[in-house]
Formats: sequence, C-alpha cells, structure tokens
Amino acid sequence: MSIDAVLSMLKSREKDSVGRLMEWLRIPSVSTDPKHAGDCRKAAEWCAEQLRLAGLKPEVRETGSKERPGHPIVFAHHPGPAGYKGPHVLFYGHYDVQPPDPLDLWESPPFEPVLKPAKPGGPGERVVARGAVDDKGQVSTFLEAVRAWKDAAGGVPIALTVMIEGEEESGSVNLENFIKAHKDELARADVCVISDTGMPAADWPAITYGMRGLAYCEVVLHAADQDLHSGLWGGKVPNPINELCRVLAQLWDADRRVTLPGFYDRVLETTEEERAQWRRLNLDPAAALKKIGLPPEASIGEQGWTFIEREWARPTCDINGIYGGYQGPGAKTVIGAKAGAKVSFRLVADQDPMEVGRAFEKWLRERTPPGCRWEFHQHSGGPPGNVPIDCPFLQAAIRALKRANPGGKDPVLIKSGGSIPVVGMIKTLLKLDTVLMGFGLEDDRVHSPNEKFELACFNLGARAHANLIAEFASATSKY
Amino acid sequence: MSIDAVLSMLKSREKDSVGRLMEWLRIPSVSTDPKHAGDCRKAAEWCAEQLRLAGLKPEVRETGSKERPGHPIVFAHHPGPAGYKGPHVLFYGHYDVQPPDPLDLWESPPFEPVLKPAKPGGPGERVVARGAVDDKGQVSTFLEAVRAWKDAAGGVPIALTVMIEGEEESGSVNLENFIKAHKDELARADVCVISDTGMPAADWPAITYGMRGLAYCEVVLHAADQDLHSGLWGGKVPNPINELCRVLAQLWDADRRVTLPGFYDRVLETTEEERAQWRRLNLDPAAALKKIGLPPEASIGEQGWTFIEREWARPTCDINGIYGGYQGPGAKTVIGAKAGAKVSFRLVADQDPMEVGRAFEKWLRERTPPGCRWEFHQHSGGPPGNVPIDCPFLQAAIRALKRANPGGKDPVLIKSGGSIPVVGMIKTLLKLDTVLMGFGLEDDRVHSPNEKFELACFNLGARAHANLIAEFASATSKY
Repeated sequence: MSIDAVLSMLKSREKDSVGRLMEWLRIPSVSTDPKHAGDCRKAAEWCAEQLRLAGLKPEVRETGSKERPGHPIVFAHHPGPAGYKGPHVLFYGHYDVQPPDPLDLWESPPFEPVLKPAKPGGPGERVVARGAVDDKGQVSTFLEAVRAWKDAAGGVPIALTVMIEGEEESGSVNLENFIKAHKDELARADVCVISDTGMPAADWPAITYGMRGLAYCEVVLHAADQDLHSGLWGGKVPNPINELCRVLAQLWDADRRVTLPGFYDRVLETTEEERAQWRRLNLDPAAALKKIGLPPEASIGEQGWTFIEREWARPTCDINGIYGGYQGPGAKTVIGAKAGAKVSFRLVADQDPMEVGRAFEKWLRERTPPGCRWEFHQHSGGPPGNVPIDCPFLQAAIRALKRANPGGKDPVLIKSGGSIPVVGMIKTLLKLDTVLMGFGLEDDRVHSPNEKFELACFNLGARAHANLIAEFASATSKY
Repeated sequence: MSIDAVLSMLKSREKDSVGRLMEWLRIPSVSTDPKHAGDCRKAAEWCAEQLRLAGLKPEVRETGSKERPGHPIVFAHHPGPAGYKGPHVLFYGHYDVQPPDPLDLWESPPFEPVLKPAKPGGPGERVVARGAVDDKGQVSTFLEAVRAWKDAAGGVPIALTVMIEGEEESGSVNLENFIKAHKDELARADVCVISDTGMPAADWPAITYGMRGLAYCEVVLHAADQDLHSGLWGGKVPNPINELCRVLAQLWDADRRVTLPGFYDRVLETTEEERAQWRRLNLDPAAALKKIGLPPEASIGEQGWTFIEREWARPTCDINGIYGGYQGPGAKTVIGAKAGAKVSFRLVADQDPMEVGRAFEKWLRERTPPGCRWEFHQHSGGPPGNVPIDCPFLQAAIRALKRANPGGKDPVLIKSGGSIPVVGMIKTLLKLDTVLMGFGLEDDRVHSPNEKFELACFNLGARAHANLIAEFASATSKY
C-alpha cells in the first residue's frame, strides 16, 4: 500500500527534512519590516521550489497594487490523478514570520536555526529559530508529506490547491483581495486545511474545531466642549469618565453574563460529547493561572461554566483599553471633555460580529447620559470558526492523526479562544470549512524569543499530512 | 470722620492707584519659571515698598532651604494704635502670576499692562495684563486702602499682619513650613482676610463664605503579572479594566449620591437663609451650560438639589483620569495587567479629606475582585473652608461692602465649588477663619490670555478694604 511506502520514506529522511526546514528558517522573512521585502520573496520562492519538487506547478503571484505592492503568495494547483473522486483540498499557510525583537533575549541568533535537546539531557531534539513553529515548521510538515508522496508513490494522489501567503503576521492585508480576485480557482476546493494551531502534548495530537470570532469596537463619550475645572463644575454636569464607567459596568450581570439583548441567541449549545473530549485533557486551571501570577481564586467568568469552557465555548466581553482625563503623575483637578474605551467581544458560533457591533451601539445609545453623545467605531474583527464534530473532513483528519501516532494517545478535539482571521475569510468568501490540524505545543514561544518546534511534533505532522492525503485519496466521493 | 477722608482720598487718586498697579504688573513674576526668580523678588520688594509707604515695617523673608530656595514672602506686622481693642487681621495674598502662555492669543503683551474700555465704546475702563486680577490687582485694592488710611488719617488704625507669598501659582510649596516656622507671630491674628475670589457683577459685591475641600486619590487595580492575549484568556480571568469599571460605577447610586458609607454624615445642612441668598443671584443653568457646549438637559447631579447647590453645598465624586490597556489607534486584543484611575472627592464642611480617603480605600478593599489587588495613593488635598453666616467678621465685611457700594446692590453671600488650599492651611495650622472678600468677575480670564480687571471692581475693592478697616477700628472687642 502506497501510504506505507510514503511513511517509510518520511522515516528514512527525517534528518533531510529538518535540514530543509532549517534552510527556510535562515531566510529572515519578516513581513512587517520593508527592508525584509527581498527576504520575503526569497522565502516564497524557496517554498515554491519545494512544491515543484513535489510535482506541483507552483507560481509566485503578486499581491497589492503597483503603488503599494504586497508580499507574493505562493499558489499551486494540482488536479490529482485521473478519476479522482475525493474532496479537493485547499492548503493554506504562511511563510512570513514575526520580527525577532527583543534580540538580546535570544540564546542563539533568531535566523541561525540550531538543534537543541528537547529537554536538557533528555531524548529528542527541537529546532530553535524565529518561525520554527509559526508557521514555516508547520507548513513544512505539509511540504514534506507531499514530497514524500511524490518520491515514494509517484505523485500527490488528490486534487489540491496550495496558497501560502507572506503577510499573516502583518494582518493579511492583501489576502482578501487576492481571494476575491482568484475566487473561481479557489472555489474548486471542498475543504481548507491549515496547520497553525497546537496540541496538548508531543505524543497527543489534536484537531482544533472551533476558534472564537471577534467584534472590536471603540466608543468615545463626549460631554462639554472643553476640559472643566472639577471644583467649579464637579457634581453639576456630566463627567464623561464617571458616565462611561457607569454605562460599561452594565455590560455584565452579577453572573458575569454579557447583558446585550440577544447576545446569546445564536450561541451553539456545547454537547456532552464535546465536554467529554475536553475533560480528557485534565486541565489544571490553578497551574495555568500560576503561570501568569494569579491565585486559584482568580478563576472567574460566566457563572456555570468551567475554566476551559469559558474560553472555548462561551462568548465574552473585554475592555481592551480605556482612557480619559489626566493620566500623568500626581493630581490634576480636571473633568475631561471626553472618555473612550476599546471594547471587544469574543464570539462563538454562530454569532455575527457585525450584528453584535450593531447591538452594542444600540445598547449604548439607549444609555446615553443626559447632554452627552457617543462616537462609535467598529474596528477589525471576524466571525467565529466552527466545524461540527461529525463533519466528515474532520473525521478524516482524526483518522489520519490516529494512524500517524500508532500506539499513542487518541487525538482530542479542542477549541481555541483566539481567532485565525483567515478561517473566517475562507468561510465567508469561499464557503469552505477549515480543518485546523496543528502540531505546536503551548511552550513553543510563538512570537517570543527562542521560538522552537519539537522534532517529534514536526515528524508527527508530516506523517499526519501524509495520512490525511491517503484518507482523501481513498475517498469515493467528496463527502 | 476719618473713613470719609480716606474714601475722598481714594476717589481723588484713582488714576494714581491704577498707575501703581500697572507698575507692579510690569514685573513678570512667574513663580513656576526659574528664570523669573529675580522678577519674583523684584515684585516682592515692590510690594514691601508699598507697605512701607503705608507706614508698616515690611520684611522680605526667605523661604525654602539653601539647597532649594523658594520665592520670598512679604511679611509685615503692624500693632495698630495704642488701646486698639478690635480684632487683629491677617491679610494674605500672592504676588506671583501664572505663566502667560499661549502668548499668541494675547491682544497686547502680557507684561505691558494697558487700559482698555470696559466694553467697546462704553463707559469705564479695564486693565489688561497677566496678574491684573489674580492676584496683584486684588492685593492692590488692599494696598491702596492701607496707603489711603496712612495718607488721609495718619496711619492704619488696626492691628494687622500682612503675608504676601510668591508661590501660590506653583502650589504654595513653602507656605506650610513658613507658617509653622512663624506660628507664634501669626497666631496673634483673630481672622484672615483674602481678596482672591469673585462677585456676581461689577456693581454687586459678594463674600465667599465657603469653598469645597478636596480628597484626591489614585487607585490601580492589578491582576495578572503580564498583559494577556484577550482570545486565550478573555472570559476566564479578571480583566482589570472590566473590574475597575464595575467597582467605580458603584460609587454613585441611582440618585447620583456618593455611596461611601458615612460620606454625608458630617455634611452641614444648607439653611433656608443660604438658599435665599443664592436665589437672589437668579442664576441661569442653561446659560452656564451653553458656554461649555452643553444642552440644558446636561444639568445633572445629586437628586433633590439645584444646579448651584450641587456646586456650593454638596460634596461630589469625580474620576479625573482613567487609564489601562491599549490606548493607541486601532485595535489591540490585549487584557492589560492593570488599570488605574484618579478619583477625587470635592468636600463640604465639615467633611475631612483624610477620613474620606480612608473610607474610600476601605470601600475599595471590600470590593477587591477575585485574585486582584489594589494599589492606593492619596494625593494632595485640603479641608473645606466654611465661615458661618453669623460670624461677626463676615458680618463686618458685609457692612463694609455695603458702605463701599452706596446705592448699589446689597452684598450677596456666595460659595465656590473650588478650593483655595491656603484657607484650609490657615484654618488647620492657625485655627483662623478666613473672610474671602474678592472683586473678580467671571469673565476676567484668570489664568488665560488677556486677563483683565475692571477699574470699577478695583476701586470698589479699595473702598471696601478701607471700610473694613474702619469697621474693625471701631470695634470695642475682638468679636
């Protein structure tokens, strides 16, 4: 059976595989820094070459405009073998990386990847470099799988579209236009696969089947047209800070539930099956809180839900910033003319960011303090991502992970409280579900100095992608 | 009768009087700016010379330390005539002025005083310069009165101590130590008189018999020991901004009364006599609000009290500044490690600033969100100033004002929502009540470009001080 040959080949070339990843990591493709524009292109071309070696016909496509060019996107179509009946897969990833600052905290230079013991004195190794896991390392698990299919079985046996962008770490500013411009090509896909998430442990694979969405608003409450002397005016006119606090405090009830009318109407129920999956993780809230300097009693949130359910299953509201009046040292007896806050809502399926933003604005206007006025902006955001547990693509990924980790722990279904905006974009523009099959660990130091990727995770990822391709290749329908 | 001679002399030398004031105004005694230290001394010496011409024996006394010298204080004792039975008066004022910035908004240079028509094309004049009213002009009303007593009647007929400082506009930083160091001398006084307040109109004198005190606190709420990703943590740990808003919003009840336990316990009742005085002013809240860009419905405050009562008779609580999380442009999905606010309480007699600060701190600690901790500071502040309406010194001042303004409106008893810290200092350290007999108008542009003082007010002030001296001179006891 060809998958066995593919897995044997992966096993035999593990050293070469990590060598290739280290080559890619040497290219400082920092997308936010214009002086690395050439490096970004180099990283894109390196990636295209890998796809070419896997038998695909990649292109390095331009993004942005002539006036404001973006970093290129590596794009490839692969029709699959004649008579292929399974689903057409869109693989998305990114070759750009976060800036390496602060440089002085790196134990080795960020763009000179090194192998270190996974644990001092213990077995296994890790690769340390900027981008080791986010996302070059994770994308490489896919690249190694398709190369192994080519080399061991003559070709990639599924219909595949690959889209590797270079601006994920700088807001994917050109991705939406790119997807719109290439919608006809991209719409051939039946499902999207991304490797940019994590798993509970190196020997415990996971599928992330839900991410929270985001509605991010900014509100400014205006009162007098000037700053006022708090002695001469205090107590007889609206103080926008007083009033803002009084209004925003009403966002939560005594059970810490968000009070916007209808806020929970679209929230999907968490099933007993889901809870059972999460209980398998045996998470220790006290240990998690300790890492950020909080005692066990700081485990607070919506009444009736556990620590992890509050992150994965429940929407929430946070004030991410607040400002008004005098902020310098000492005392100033002023009543500011205005006060503002950045208020965001983390959303779960099937909440809609624009709907929540509108509800919040309406709610604020109903609470306008006498003589005041609101200024309201809705900043960036995105819908929640969610794949039903019984989705066949997800079930295929679970089978692939199981086969990639023989004798190991059964894959677990997890969620994340964060957002991957591209998941929402792909859902909205292309109507595709995304399977998030990621191989990072919590301690990989993503975006921080000494970012690393365990080779155990890297190799598991390559085997998983190889198996997932086999799953789809043997499908007799698109599911 | 000698007061008539004094008033005649004042009348006959009105031109000279304003000429003297303009001399003083030419000295740029900006106390906050070290490069004007010499000018401050010059202004002090100019003032001492005026007191010398009035027959007093002034000294220019040093303040501060050798390492950190302050601006000098003009100090004079005058025993009064042999057999004087009336009260010993302490007159306080200040010769320093605010910086003149922004310079480009001045219609004439701030330290080149000019006379302009009081109203374009109308009768009367005003002097325009930095310090015209605050406080050189107001102090000059006193200086002119004592000089006229000397010149027309041979001497000032009361026991008098004069203390004119040079740091009022920079926080009176050396005054407390000065008063403590000269306590024995100063404690001879029975009452303090200050001219640094206002009146409703140029032909309508007033006594300010109450100022609010101040308790100014800063609170910082700490949660995690680092900023957190709002996706991964939002909803399951305390967000210090959310929590701070929830706590601070409880500072007021639905009637906008401050909820600190015992907060109103020491608040003196407002009498029907006081309310009657204030009604005479016929204040128009809508007009006052319009000047600061607010509609009539912005007249909000403690339930059951009028616009002016809320400023003059009632304590209040204002958040003067608030900060936390991300304040830059756009969106950042962060949960800050801490959030802070500057919270001040304007107090009325007989509330105590330290007691209110302690009550606030206790109140906060009773509301500490789980896993969080408060950092609490009490900044500067001061007790409320209040003189009972039936206080004989105050009644003497009312009679003096009445005589200074024959045929004009009866003096009115007003308060102010602001604070003059020196009033509290004099009450606390010397146990003296202060009679605030001031001659400024609301539109005098105190601290702003084109500060001015109406000559009608200036001359009224001089007559008032002359009459007040006569009042005390004829007293058969210290009251």
